[in-house]
Amino acid sequence: MGTRAGVVVTGTEVLTGRVSDRNGPWLAEELRRLGVDIGQIVVVGDRPGDLAGALEHLAASGVDLILTSGGLGPTADDLTAAVVAEFQGRPSELDEALEQRIGEIVARLSAGRGWQTDPAATAAATRKQALVPVGADVLAPVGTAPGLVVPVADGRTGPPIVVLPGPPFELQGMWPAVTTNAVVLAAIEGRRELRQRTVRLWRTPESELAATLRAHHDRLDGLEITTCLRSGELEIVTRFAPEAQPAYDALHAALTEAHGEVMFSPDGRTIDEIVTDALLEQGATIATAESCTAGLLAARLTDRPGSSAYVLGGLVVYSNEAKHELAGVDPALIERVGAVSPEVAEALARGARARLGADIGVGITGVAGPDGGTDDKPVGLVHLCVSRDGRTIPRRAMIPGGRADVRARSVLVAMHMLRELLLG
Amino acid sequence: MGTRAGVVVTGTEVLTGRVSDRNGPWLAEELRRLGVDIGQIVVVGDRPGDLAGALEHLAASGVDLILTSGGLGPTADDLTAAVVAEFQGRPSELDEALEQRIGEIVARLSAGRGWQTDPAATAAATRKQALVPVGADVLAPVGTAPGLVVPVADGRTGPPIVVLPGPPFELQGMWPAVTTNAVVLAAIEGRRELRQRTVRLWRTPESELAATLRAHHDRLDGLEITTCLRSGELEIVTRFAPEAQPAYDALHAALTEAHGEVMFSPDGRTIDEIVTDALLEQGATIATAESCTAGLLAARLTDRPGSSAYVLGGLVVYSNEAKHELAGVDPALIERVGAVSPEVAEALARGARARLGADIGVGITGVAGPDGGTDDKPVGLVHLCVSRDGRTIPRRAMIPGGRADVRARSVLVAMHMLRELLLG
Repeated sequence: MGTRAGVVVTGTEVLTGRVSDRNGPWLAEELRRLGVDIGQIVVVGDRPGDLAGALEHLAASGVDLILTSGGLGPTADDLTAAVVAEFQGRPSELDEALEQRIGEIVARLSAGRGWQTDPAATAAATRKQALVPVGADVLAPVGTAPGLVVPVADGRTGPPIVVLPGPPFELQGMWPAVTTNAVVLAAIEGRRELRQRTVRLWRTPESELAATLRAHHDRLDGLEITTCLRSGELEIVTRFAPEAQPAYDALHAALTEAHGEVMFSPDGRTIDEIVTDALLEQGATIATAESCTAGLLAARLTDRPGSSAYVLGGLVVYSNEAKHELAGVDPALIERVGAVSPEVAEALARGARARLGADIGVGITGVAGPDGGTDDKPVGLVHLCVSRDGRTIPRRAMIPGGRADVRARSVLVAMHMLRELLLG
Repeated sequence: MGTRAGVVVTGTEVLTGRVSDRNGPWLAEELRRLGVDIGQIVVVGDRPGDLAGALEHLAASGVDLILTSGGLGPTADDLTAAVVAEFQGRPSELDEALEQRIGEIVARLSAGRGWQTDPAATAAATRKQALVPVGADVLAPVGTAPGLVVPVADGRTGPPIVVLPGPPFELQGMWPAVTTNAVVLAAIEGRRELRQRTVRLWRTPESELAATLRAHHDRLDGLEITTCLRSGELEIVTRFAPEAQPAYDALHAALTEAHGEVMFSPDGRTIDEIVTDALLEQGATIATAESCTAGLLAARLTDRPGSSAYVLGGLVVYSNEAKHELAGVDPALIERVGAVSPEVAEALARGARARLGADIGVGITGVAGPDGGTDDKPVGLVHLCVSRDGRTIPRRAMIPGGRADVRARSVLVAMHMLRELLLG
């Protein structure tokens, strides 16, 4: 399987879901780009035994490199550097130059934030963070915590361990220092290009895809295919070495033949990229009027840098008064057909366009739940409308799941309706 | 450490970050409520060897129960049931009643969505999902995939394995059947109550907390304390058996004494709960006008069921024209002081209130980046304002990180300003 790495994510806050881990997947993707495959991510709490157990497990599984994230802070539960030092058979020593450097950073940060700090507390914290395994390479801090590359002690065998901070911004900022580190490069020197291609289908049952793959089964050698259905998008990701490119091309052709009509992304672009690329290319502007999604669509349309080129603004029309006052929906219409109706969705789309002077308007109104559903209009019923010049696309969706699912899926349906309006 | 369980999350889409795992942390918290401690979550891709290796690792670590999520779909990369059956030493057999039941569910779902399906493809998929290890308990499907409780084969030792589907809604819907399953209950019968208490501080360096904990160090027996600083909130979570309650009470008193002024959550409520509870209790209504956050605050304020009691609506004022047209900000003011300024933040807060007729208004305007920064107004500069009757709280924040960090942190700062306005 080529060159492999394992990742250990530390932190009881990650293990218990108070923080969702962004580092493991980020590292997996960056390593894949380098030609290093990740088979496992182990999430452990802030307990030395569990962390050591995870390192032992990954080392025993034969990986060429281990990376850890988190556990480099100043409190006693931040114990990664000490556990890794012991695991690699290296004593730890105070690095005085590093201590001074961290002290300067902490002083500057605290001053900038106007935080009151106690000098003795800060000094103790800084000293802890400057304890370094002898023989390790120190990676310069991006926040306050330095990273480490810790080779196994002389005379023993095992993969080097790269110790990285938990905050994603710090970890990502340190990554260039990892990929140019001599110990890391030596550990992964056998790596080979690992290609990854993605296609996405809209509203296709996984069973249909399974049938296509079974029919094509004798021509899949060298391809590792994974599929994932989420919220109506069926994603097919294939990984392969360069020599399997012809096999992948044949698979892509087979998928296109069987599912071309619903293959909205033959090139791996996300629906967000497809919609915002189209808005940019067409020089079109957009405005939203959202009830149950309450700003989620506007926020998503502005995720991307430079989105002010197409997003003018939006209306969050939670109350019926807001639907009238902001989007100009006739109160008599709401009275007659109800706020969750195709008529109001269309009036919202038109109102958003008119109000913001945009080329394209989107209206969303639905019952997100858990309360407020009726026999006629149950929880999960959402009416959407996208509108541009003379053209209007309405849609009625019945979305399963809880309140968060209904809201998130509504936004996804709206994105696909925009794709249809822009490119259909 | 009492009764312990391990979790394996399967799916290359999770391993590579295309989907972020919600199941591992959810299971960890539910198990803790049962008195079962989770030490590790292992995320593996859709490869039989990696999944078997993870099961082997957890079984060898001595856990009393293993739970898996994902890998129960109809495509060939969904292999959890087969790998678990083999790992537990049990052959698999077709469960014909289950096959029929799944077939009925799939037919109903496809019809409801108006999806076209090929009967042969559906039948093959259904048959795969109805293959069950002999001697396993079947948990009724919530979506299309059944869950399984698979004991180890007779004459061997090892923990039972609970096999659950990947979609969080299905997994959570199946949970009551897990917690009443006789095999599961027998495996965790030694469990004991495990308490968990949380307090949160605002804008406090972790080093200050570390000093408090060091000073209190000889009175922490029986307490497992983890701390996590994220976006300005410092969270302290303590887990303990009931007999350590006095030790926890003493710790809580020490934290209150040292950090009472910044302890915004002594009882573990999130800032969202604190703000929305206060809005409800005071019968106050709220409206937003957001530029750089573009709806994220409105969406967050409406996360909670019943939020229509306090959220009237909001304005997403991305363009300067929208700031004028929707929120009534004087174009001459924008011309004079710039869109990112305390004056415009205040005008937005007042405009939102006036426009929606709300008691409380919030204005946010900033440079989310990565472009658009200047020497005077760099990326990360955000001006916020909350306003109610005669009272106005302005704030200038300089937020580090990338575009997503600036936007998310701006919303968090706004939530804390609302807390101050409502409760300060």
